[in-house]
Amino acid sequence: MAQLLSSSYSLTICSRNKPYLKPFKQCSTPFSIAVSCNNSKPSSRGFFLQEQKLRKHSLSVHAAAVSTSQETPVQTSSGNPFKPQRVMVIGGDGYCGWATALHLSNKGYEVAIVDSLVRRLFDHQLGLESLTPISSIQNRLHCWKSLTGKNIELYIGDICDFEFLSETFKTFEPDAVVHFGEQRSAPYSMIDRSRAVYTQQNNVVGTLNVLFAIKEFREQCHLVKLGTMGEYGTPNIDIEEGYITITHNGRTDTLPYPKQASSFYHLSKVHDSHNIAFTCKAWGIRATDLNQGVVYGVRTDETALHEELYNRFDYDGIFGTALNRFCVQAAVGHPLTVYGKGGQTRGFLDIRDTVQCVELAIANPAKPGEFRVFNQFTEQFSVNQLAELVTKAGEKLGLDVKTIHVPNPRVEAEEHYYNCKNTKLVDLGLKPHFLSDSLLDSLLNFAVQYKDRVDTKQIMPSVSWKKIGVKTKTVTA
Amino acid sequence: MAQLLSSSYSLTICSRNKPYLKPFKQCSTPFSIAVSCNNSKPSSRGFFLQEQKLRKHSLSVHAAAVSTSQETPVQTSSGNPFKPQRVMVIGGDGYCGWATALHLSNKGYEVAIVDSLVRRLFDHQLGLESLTPISSIQNRLHCWKSLTGKNIELYIGDICDFEFLSETFKTFEPDAVVHFGEQRSAPYSMIDRSRAVYTQQNNVVGTLNVLFAIKEFREQCHLVKLGTMGEYGTPNIDIEEGYITITHNGRTDTLPYPKQASSFYHLSKVHDSHNIAFTCKAWGIRATDLNQGVVYGVRTDETALHEELYNRFDYDGIFGTALNRFCVQAAVGHPLTVYGKGGQTRGFLDIRDTVQCVELAIANPAKPGEFRVFNQFTEQFSVNQLAELVTKAGEKLGLDVKTIHVPNPRVEAEEHYYNCKNTKLVDLGLKPHFLSDSLLDSLLNFAVQYKDRVDTKQIMPSVSWKKIGVKTKTVTA
Repeated sequence: MAQLLSSSYSLTICSRNKPYLKPFKQCSTPFSIAVSCNNSKPSSRGFFLQEQKLRKHSLSVHAAAVSTSQETPVQTSSGNPFKPQRVMVIGGDGYCGWATALHLSNKGYEVAIVDSLVRRLFDHQLGLESLTPISSIQNRLHCWKSLTGKNIELYIGDICDFEFLSETFKTFEPDAVVHFGEQRSAPYSMIDRSRAVYTQQNNVVGTLNVLFAIKEFREQCHLVKLGTMGEYGTPNIDIEEGYITITHNGRTDTLPYPKQASSFYHLSKVHDSHNIAFTCKAWGIRATDLNQGVVYGVRTDETALHEELYNRFDYDGIFGTALNRFCVQAAVGHPLTVYGKGGQTRGFLDIRDTVQCVELAIANPAKPGEFRVFNQFTEQFSVNQLAELVTKAGEKLGLDVKTIHVPNPRVEAEEHYYNCKNTKLVDLGLKPHFLSDSLLDSLLNFAVQYKDRVDTKQIMPSVSWKKIGVKTKTVTA
Repeated sequence: MAQLLSSSYSLTICSRNKPYLKPFKQCSTPFSIAVSCNNSKPSSRGFFLQEQKLRKHSLSVHAAAVSTSQETPVQTSSGNPFKPQRVMVIGGDGYCGWATALHLSNKGYEVAIVDSLVRRLFDHQLGLESLTPISSIQNRLHCWKSLTGKNIELYIGDICDFEFLSETFKTFEPDAVVHFGEQRSAPYSMIDRSRAVYTQQNNVVGTLNVLFAIKEFREQCHLVKLGTMGEYGTPNIDIEEGYITITHNGRTDTLPYPKQASSFYHLSKVHDSHNIAFTCKAWGIRATDLNQGVVYGVRTDETALHEELYNRFDYDGIFGTALNRFCVQAAVGHPLTVYGKGGQTRGFLDIRDTVQCVELAIANPAKPGEFRVFNQFTEQFSVNQLAELVTKAGEKLGLDVKTIHVPNPRVEAEEHYYNCKNTKLVDLGLKPHFLSDSLLDSLLNFAVQYKDRVDTKQIMPSVSWKKIGVKTKTVTA
């Protein structure tokens, strides 16, 4: 498709160590050109992981990414002799990926971001814009380095291009790959046939390529893959974490939990899950599937450090998740738009918990051959409950919040049973941020702060599950 | 990928009605050029189906396929007011597809074959050849017409090319689509990364395109999709037909049967099943998923009519299914090659039952919005049981049949519980051909007849589930 990048390139950025700084308005050095420390060759590294210190040396332009770090042993936690240290964050320029990359870098991991930046292209093509102004990925990384002295490598390219992906693997040598690098919007996948096909092709082939790269180049590397709670649909029984034990006609087995996804996007994640499960069994891949709920919020400790590190905040009908959209609606005096009856219940989590969950998964890797599934959310709400919470929180800020029910553009049950398990990440140490505490400081205030940037034309749903057609939509509303 | 066709074209062939003839050695008129009856324009047809008679008129070369038939009402069976009459067989040049297309044509359906012929290209690329010599698709269709007077339209192109597919839909206006048009070999999908990716991309995108074409152009059209019993894997509980009722923590729901596929090919069918289920729910598509077992045999009533109608018979390590391969091995004095312990148990069926099952599914369509799953096999055997049956049958023909166990190139349980339900097609009227009756006449005798064409280098497994790599295999053994 036209929106795919046709070529890939790699950048590595590093500079002198700097002390960790408090937020300030301007990063010290404007980023000007892709640079790389060139006095170090890539070295072979095992899965026995080691800390890396940034070198102090001159900078020079570099055509391909190279490893720049010295290695020294680190202390490991919890008696585990292996501590993953080098983490590749695919999709590290996106909403969850950016916050995660910074969080892991802050926690001492060596991080590389792999991203085609196609998410920014979608905004251009659809006439959308983040509520928060976001910097270029180059400026983001330069700012991060200026503030913290921490280097994040950058590889720009498409993981569906296996030649590009294999070079990033051979150069960076990850111990863990966090894979956010997929088209992640259900409405986007339901715009037209070409976006539906693109979503499945991009997501499935990208993940297949990652699996092959791990098998070929880093067989001990742990895949931490972002799935979605939407893979399960809304069955009339409790939702377990990935597997369910079934007794049938007197026999018992534990099998993959049945999947009932409800968009071409959600289906692409189902396909990924099946593909990954197979490679764990056939090749001994170690993988964790994080079936994530709906993420809300925008601030994390790291993105709050500086405006150039701010995360994107999508409130539009395509990429905006329900709660983020409601907060923007409340801020600008637009009625909250509940789709249909509003009894749709889902799992939700604060983006600060997304980054925490990913870190927990990395620090506690799956075993070789293990396909582990964690349900990654902290609380369940119906859409109507969310609207009520935003209405009450808005009142505290003096906002007059109204709610309207609009025709549901999706095909989904609007009243249903929903009870999902989510104990595995808590068992690993997750300390949730609950919505009641986050709503005002991390969400509504943010929306109010940037309300002048809101384009109200973007708010209403523009994509219909039933009306999707074969003709490519080239004009946006 | 290089092996994909880059362009598509359509042919329609028709000529005068001829009486149904008995087999003879040469078809009356050598096929020379793509021709079409050009005195009839495509007409709009509803799902209220009607018989069509072939017109008698002159022939002329035609650039694009056009509809050529008059319509008159037919008697319907079982009181059903709607009888599908126009059937598009995607993949109609392949092993199951060819036999099905002829069978449906013989039964009075108006049939169009849609095929890219890429299966023939695979043979060239891998250095393989059918045991039976097979004619070109053009000669096959010409022969069929010469013998029976029945016209089968031919559209040559790739269904991943939506422009091509939409033209075939608009021109042929199918009431039912039988979709065999996928890369159907598990070993092929495990040759290398590029074949794995190709298999999933080709199969998933092709099926998505068919779903979109039905939604856009023929919303009442019934999709009859070939799945595989391999979607279920080998769970330790009974395998139901598509769905299982689960009681869990005091609540009950009927959910899609859990999937545990064990090759990138089998996984592609799992992906298809999920995609189709979604479109049935979201768009009201009517679909039947035929989860087919391992097909054996080569002769059907129609392919036996003439050598130019003979079906392909694959015995090689890539495309040859277990029983067909064993029969060829027995015929040439090669030991039967049992992979591993040989306790692997699967469902099997005669190709004469494949065509019967597809006809039953078409004649009894799914309801709008219904995603129906039939397990399409007639008997269960372990690989060891198959080897014993072939050994005994070989003895009757004076063959000295030996069996060897070779290292299993696949990742699969070699001893396991296996009990699959298969009553739905029987309930619709399936009259199975059992293996004990078919083995000698349809299989071993055929293998003996063509044993001089056997290339013994093709017999042994050449693809390993564990050794698959990222480098494209360009040289065959």
